[in-house]
Amino acid sequence: MSHRPRARDVGVVIGTLPTGKHNAITDVEGVRVGHTTLIEGEGALEPGVGPIRTGVTAIVQHSGDVFRDKVSAWVHRINGFGEVTNAEQVRELGVLETPLLLTGTQNVPRVADAVLDWAFGKDAEMGVTTWGPSPVVAECSDQYLSDVRGRHVRTEHVIAAIEGATSGPVAEGGVGAGTGMSCCEFKGGIGTSSRVLSAETGGFTVGVLVLSNFGRREHLIIGGVPVGRSLVDWHPPLSEVNPDGLGSSIIIVIATDAPLPPRQLERLCVRAGGGLARTGGLVSTSSGDFAIAFSTTNRVPHDPSTLVIEQRQVAEALLPGQDGAAMPAINYLFQATLEATEEAILNSMFAAETLVGRDGHTRHALPIDEVLRLLHL
Amino acid sequence: MSHRPRARDVGVVIGTLPTGKHNAITDVEGVRVGHTTLIEGEGALEPGVGPIRTGVTAIVQHSGDVFRDKVSAWVHRINGFGEVTNAEQVRELGVLETPLLLTGTQNVPRVADAVLDWAFGKDAEMGVTTWGPSPVVAECSDQYLSDVRGRHVRTEHVIAAIEGATSGPVAEGGVGAGTGMSCCEFKGGIGTSSRVLSAETGGFTVGVLVLSNFGRREHLIIGGVPVGRSLVDWHPPLSEVNPDGLGSSIIIVIATDAPLPPRQLERLCVRAGGGLARTGGLVSTSSGDFAIAFSTTNRVPHDPSTLVIEQRQVAEALLPGQDGAAMPAINYLFQATLEATEEAILNSMFAAETLVGRDGHTRHALPIDEVLRLLHL
Amino acid sequence: MSHRPRARDVGVVIGTLPTGKHNAITDVEGVRVGHTTLIEGEGALEPGVGPIRTGVTAIVQHSGDVFRDKVSAWVHRINGFGEVTNAEQVRELGVLETPLLLTGTQNVPRVADAVLDWAFGKDAEMGVTTWGPSPVVAECSDQYLSDVRGRHVRTEHVIAAIEGATSGPVAEGGVGAGTGMSCCEFKGGIGTSSRVLSAETGGFTVGVLVLSNFGRREHLIIGGVPVGRSLVDWHPPLSEVNPDGLGSSIIIVIATDAPLPPRQLERLCVRAGGGLARTGGLVSTSSGDFAIAFSTTNRVPHDPSTLVIEQRQVAEALLPGQDGAAMPAINYLFQATLEATEEAILNSMFAAETLVGRDGHTRHALPIDEVLRLLHL
Amino acid sequence: MSHRPRARDVGVVIGTLPTGKHNAITDVEGVRVGHTTLIEGEGALEPGVGPIRTGVTAIVQHSGDVFRDKVSAWVHRINGFGEVTNAEQVRELGVLETPLLLTGTQNVPRVADAVLDWAFGKDAEMGVTTWGPSPVVAECSDQYLSDVRGRHVRTEHVIAAIEGATSGPVAEGGVGAGTGMSCCEFKGGIGTSSRVLSAETGGFTVGVLVLSNFGRREHLIIGGVPVGRSLVDWHPPLSEVNPDGLGSSIIIVIATDAPLPPRQLERLCVRAGGGLARTGGLVSTSSGDFAIAFSTTNRVPHDPSTLVIEQRQVAEALLPGQDGAAMPAINYLFQATLEATEEAILNSMFAAETLVGRDGHTRHALPIDEVLRLLHL
Repeated sequence: MSHRPRARDVGVVIGTLPTGKHNAITDVEGVRVGHTTLIEGEGALEPGVGPIRTGVTAIVQHSGDVFRDKVSAWVHRINGFGEVTNAEQVRELGVLETPLLLTGTQNVPRVADAVLDWAFGKDAEMGVTTWGPSPVVAECSDQYLSDVRGRHVRTEHVIAAIEGATSGPVAEGGVGAGTGMSCCEFKGGIGTSSRVLSAETGGFTVGVLVLSNFGRREHLIIGGVPVGRSLVDWHPPLSEVNPDGLGSSIIIVIATDAPLPPRQLERLCVRAGGGLARTGGLVSTSSGDFAIAFSTTNRVPHDPSTLVIEQRQVAEALLPGQDGAAMPAINYLFQATLEATEEAILNSMFAAETLVGRDGHTRHALPIDEVLRLLHL
Repeated sequence: MSHRPRARDVGVVIGTLPTGKHNAITDVEGVRVGHTTLIEGEGALEPGVGPIRTGVTAIVQHSGDVFRDKVSAWVHRINGFGEVTNAEQVRELGVLETPLLLTGTQNVPRVADAVLDWAFGKDAEMGVTTWGPSPVVAECSDQYLSDVRGRHVRTEHVIAAIEGATSGPVAEGGVGAGTGMSCCEFKGGIGTSSRVLSAETGGFTVGVLVLSNFGRREHLIIGGVPVGRSLVDWHPPLSEVNPDGLGSSIIIVIATDAPLPPRQLERLCVRAGGGLARTGGLVSTSSGDFAIAFSTTNRVPHDPSTLVIEQRQVAEALLPGQDGAAMPAINYLFQATLEATEEAILNSMFAAETLVGRDGHTRHALPIDEVLRLLHL
Repeated sequence: MSHRPRARDVGVVIGTLPTGKHNAITDVEGVRVGHTTLIEGEGALEPGVGPIRTGVTAIVQHSGDVFRDKVSAWVHRINGFGEVTNAEQVRELGVLETPLLLTGTQNVPRVADAVLDWAFGKDAEMGVTTWGPSPVVAECSDQYLSDVRGRHVRTEHVIAAIEGATSGPVAEGGVGAGTGMSCCEFKGGIGTSSRVLSAETGGFTVGVLVLSNFGRREHLIIGGVPVGRSLVDWHPPLSEVNPDGLGSSIIIVIATDAPLPPRQLERLCVRAGGGLARTGGLVSTSSGDFAIAFSTTNRVPHDPSTLVIEQRQVAEALLPGQDGAAMPAINYLFQATLEATEEAILNSMFAAETLVGRDGHTRHALPIDEVLRLLHL
Repeated sequence: MSHRPRARDVGVVIGTLPTGKHNAITDVEGVRVGHTTLIEGEGALEPGVGPIRTGVTAIVQHSGDVFRDKVSAWVHRINGFGEVTNAEQVRELGVLETPLLLTGTQNVPRVADAVLDWAFGKDAEMGVTTWGPSPVVAECSDQYLSDVRGRHVRTEHVIAAIEGATSGPVAEGGVGAGTGMSCCEFKGGIGTSSRVLSAETGGFTVGVLVLSNFGRREHLIIGGVPVGRSLVDWHPPLSEVNPDGLGSSIIIVIATDAPLPPRQLERLCVRAGGGLARTGGLVSTSSGDFAIAFSTTNRVPHDPSTLVIEQRQVAEALLPGQDGAAMPAINYLFQATLEATEEAILNSMFAAETLVGRDGHTRHALPIDEVLRLLHL
């Protein structure tokens, strides 16, 4: 785990809502995260062989059988130059059937196939007496640092990420799917953050985990300050490789224990885009920017026992007697999502350490001291 | 009310599910329908003056306060050359706040304004301490038969349709919003039908009401038989006015007492398009074809009293012990929607009587005897 | 016109792209803006009578016949608790047929009806030999300051706004549709800004005009600085009227002379949401937040003369020989949209002067001196 | 190739527009289709081993480099319990980058991975100096007849289907991806049909290819006649395996040489759903029903040479002097799509021969003689 500080540790505080215990997506009860990191070789790119700077990250929704006891979910496209497999099924039925997997673009098919291996291994009925699961795998491109033609993430790596997923603190930066990712032309990758609502507004937790791989240095904003403009010449990246030609994306995963149906989860996803904008995200044409949200407490059984299934939603208007200065409860969930997304992106950069990849391509770590100087912190 | 038979009365039976008592949208408990029909003047079109062949139809969701006790709802675009006011609000919040109104295209603003008059008259807090309602008004064009520049539907007509709405049998054909409408170049307008599910699949009722104004005679299909091709020269319509230049649309309203959330109501709407296709609907470029669905039993209070609100949905998988030949309950709701839509469209034509409008434009009644001959009935 | 400075005049510079001549939507060749402002009466609300603090704003796309020579367009929902009439028609056919009108919520039907009066007055064929136009009217709620039940915008006000629309500088703040609007619990309303691309990236202009009516004071961000938190106690608004109960929305109109088809105009709309987020917009549950974009140079004729119509789009990849540090041209259009949206929102607040409305409700002008102090400017 | 007649050969004529030379998707100039069929083993299901009744079908858009010279495209969801990989990218950018592949559900990841192998083998720059392609792979479930856990489609099978794709007649029924598919509880699979517009309406060709795997026998409609109700007891399928538990879907691929942008291709997709409805498709809850359309003549270069790219669209209004009985040209494209879809589905069933799969599960061929008797042909 990185020895670099998280954004909040050095005084970069985003928003006003309090964080959960670990300031991580795992603050949502039952949610676990696992990473497999693949770093091998160095030097010139040998297409299909190496160097390898890639990996896979699993977000497991709860400790039960995620296929038989499905969580409510939504997938939202901010910009579609990217892939979230089976997104339409999530929208049609409003549920997830597998753990969420994040990885490098070209690995997506192999990761999806590995999820089938994992799922089939746990449930002998799948593909025999009931349907098989529809894996949800999302990606960003790690082509700047890694050999991508080799598609180096294999079944055992995926199963290790799922089976090794844990609650508690989450490793950030260049780990798991974030291994080969870049953010604003610095090193990026995995970042996470969370917010907790007051008891009066339900006491719900919202946790966000991002895979950051977007943007140009000149656009980077931290805590409202356009620090990127001052960092353009700081260890400049190789100019001959334009990031827009190589993908520049973000995947934002939102978990909550608020009982939200798909319609309300979509509303959370829209607000995540606001957090992205506040870090400087332009949502460039070649971005695959998606938000994926799920509620751990609105479940749908694979084998329902009754014709009518209970669902719940959070009030979208003020309650009687609620303080006139308050907002409807759903708005605090929106605010939590926006704040946690912005902070998770910053954490993905604060945590990430400099990495040299293919052809000597180097993604430097965000120069935290310089950033703090620009922020007058 | 028309003295012409309904489709089923003369042996045109669509599908296999049984109808409700009145084979009408009003078979859904609490749903009421009201019409105001405006027929005045004859002869040459005097733009802005007449002749008038238009009207308005109200569908009231339940007998309570539809603003304070909102039904779950969805609006689905099949083809968007048309208007359903406030459709985006229905999708965002998943509810209706006013009765549904149907009318001729150019009347839409005046009808929406009249709904505000009606709503403000019933609730002194609207626009003062709480927001005003967002009227949902849908339309087809009655320009072939009526002076449309005059926008002849006024506030009193709208209020009469809402306040006069009744349960029980529904007047069909050239009444209310259907007054000036055409279907497959015959006279069209209002039609309705319903289906009831077996007790084993929930015993739910699905009712459909259409405002039909689409299509070309050559495409008309009745009971699977392309009768339209044989009817092209039967009292041919005026050739100089192309229906595609004048609008050709359908509004399909689906009511059910099944407890469906917006996501599942959208699914019903999609199936309504299938019923349209089976009557010959091509969904031409100039069509404004929309389906609007609501559930009378999944309610959302304007002033919630709790942070978490119960919602319900219908099972989308088989129940344990359910007969292997059965479908998941939701599929029967799909089948009911499809069948009732097809039959409602036919009823709109079977019921409608010949009408002469502006400039001598004549929409002949569907020649039922000739149709039955073509159907070998 | 306001004597208060615009944001840029006092050193609040958003982004890095240069503005057009007037830093206004009218920098897009041919685009004109007109306002009708209605301020009458004072004191206690007499529902349906006054006080009146409302109005209407017209954006006219070009100086020709906007119905016969349609501009390409798109309407994008950020949050749907609001109305843009005929949005689905814009999406289906990809064009606008009338000037865009902005107004207070309850005025929408009357404004739409007035657009028909205006259009019918100019074209005797509408509703006679061809279809009538589908007015696009968007709204925010001015209920905090104005009597809304009276729907005080009348036909003559709408026609005056359209016919009086001019190029050149645009009046901002509490004018036209902005008359009764609030932004972050300060006075808001109309604001505008523009950006011009370099010759190398096409030399295109993007102009944005907003009708701002969203947000809470505590969330306001100006130039990246969360100044709102420091302004909560500055002439606090009346606490007993919660803005979330009264609507809180924004309409963002984007004009460009870049030849964009509907698909690319949608992409611009998505980026406008980023500009909103950077000013503190949370996109609350009761927001009607929409972006509407049009291209003045991708036209569709009402009466096409050929079966195949030329359209154009802007490259979404780098051109050969383009500087490796450059972005694809479309990205500069995205950046321009995002920057101009953020600045237009700020301008709506900088320009707006304190206004007292119904029941003594007061929206104070943004305290510019205090803001500049917080910004260290 | 099947020795059974196609629907039209025995007098089942759908619609009124003429077909192309081969009544196949390959009537669209340049479009090629290739199949790899995998049939191995018999008897009891050995999960992961066999019996194998599966395959893969490739639709290649043109004879050039489909990555460097992209066709305009759209993906439309009718019902989303299914997968079309990279659908969001198609919508965002409006193009296809790879051949279209169809296969059995669980094979999707391996087929997508194989497309990468194929593409990487042809273009050394992919994943090195430019992005890799985003494979578009669509599926239906062949679980009733095949071992699906084994995912038996391998890289060589996919490359064979792509490289072996040919113009001219297309093999139908239980071939390629259709090998293990069922339609209305008879044997289904691949079917195709085409329509050609008159010279006056552009002379364009629309070709459709379906992978049919939907529906219940009782709902089957052929030529408007609900023959399925009479066929329920004809070699009844095994009752213990409910098709809704095993997937029931259709993929509809629409090719045209009409120069349509993505917006208009989406419009074609919507009409394909009408063709599905006319064959009895209920669009059940467990259906993955998608339409994918592309235009071979509206191309987008991977490496554009100009900032502004020409696109074209087909007129959506009548041309001056066009016969008053005519429709706008786009409507004939809609009609062609609807008719060709309906006929392609029927062809998929007419062509398919009885197949015995896992556990003795048998899908009988449609009894054509019996059908013709029911149709009085």
